[in-house]
Amino acid sequence: MKNRSNEALVALRRILKVTELNARALAQQSELTTSQSLLLQYVAEQEQALPSAIARAIELKQATITVLLNQLESNGFVTRSRDTEDRRRVWVRLTDAGNKVLEQSPDLLQSRFQKGFDRLESWEQSMIITALERIAALLDAKDVEAAPILDVGDLDRLIDDA
Amino acid sequence: MKNRSNEALVALRRILKVTELNARALAQQSELTTSQSLLLQYVAEQEQALPSAIARAIELKQATITVLLNQLESNGFVTRSRDTEDRRRVWVRLTDAGNKVLEQSPDLLQSRFQKGFDRLESWEQSMIITALERIAALLDAKDVEAAPILDVGDLDRLIDDA
Repeated sequence: MKNRSNEALVALRRILKVTELNARALAQQSELTTSQSLLLQYVAEQEQALPSAIARAIELKQATITVLLNQLESNGFVTRSRDTEDRRRVWVRLTDAGNKVLEQSPDLLQSRFQKGFDRLESWEQSMIITALERIAALLDAKDVEAAPILDVGDLDRLIDDA
Repeated sequence: MKNRSNEALVALRRILKVTELNARALAQQSELTTSQSLLLQYVAEQEQALPSAIARAIELKQATITVLLNQLESNGFVTRSRDTEDRRRVWVRLTDAGNKVLEQSPDLLQSRFQKGFDRLESWEQSMIITALERIAALLDAKDVEAAPILDVGDLDRLIDDA
């Protein structure tokens, strides 16, 4: 019995390790964390976006989005400007530096996972989701608040903390 | 499609998060990391053990065991003494302080996982292992060297680094 749970633990540790290594490599090779990178990607696709739409799209809390936008703005990667007609709306846009940092950023582990996962058969996707939820339940992590971001540490941390 | 991969990512992030939180809590509540704790547990069960047997039992590399033993010895939790008949053999034993720190150490997330996993039906254990190995493959982590230890960071780090 011990050997089977060890098989599961080895696979889990592999996943944890590669996620951590990737976060560290990203911190060295890029000026962006995974969350910052996903945010910039979404805004680049939309050309301009409202913070509330960004929060929905990348499934992060509005408060986290605000912290991320403050960081990205102070780095000169995005601008925020009020809508000329509805002053309550704030549009986020990428600067040239923002486009450049996004282009130079290495592929995210997250994107690799998503591409691979999308190519799986539907039954296999279901099996993986069921298995992960079972593990989360075994670890009492079922109700832990979590965003769909493959990263370690706080999602609104600065790149230097990684 | 995106929503299904997000479901998987949320569950993965939950698992990552709870493992990290647990490592941090352990660092605050105990003087031991998960690997140190597993090592002490094994030696306590055996009363005395050879480093090579410890390495096999908790599936860590001999070099990692050596680092862990150095740490535990300098903290006064274990002693190493040469066999009186075969001087090449070194026996590891717990000191009173080692027994005490082990007793006071909180339950490991690892133990919770193993207990829960052992109670699952055989088909479900297989499903979980298959799913985890599939995810590791999606993340190109299939060949990453990994021990069956539910922890983040280096396994031979000191508790203060956690």
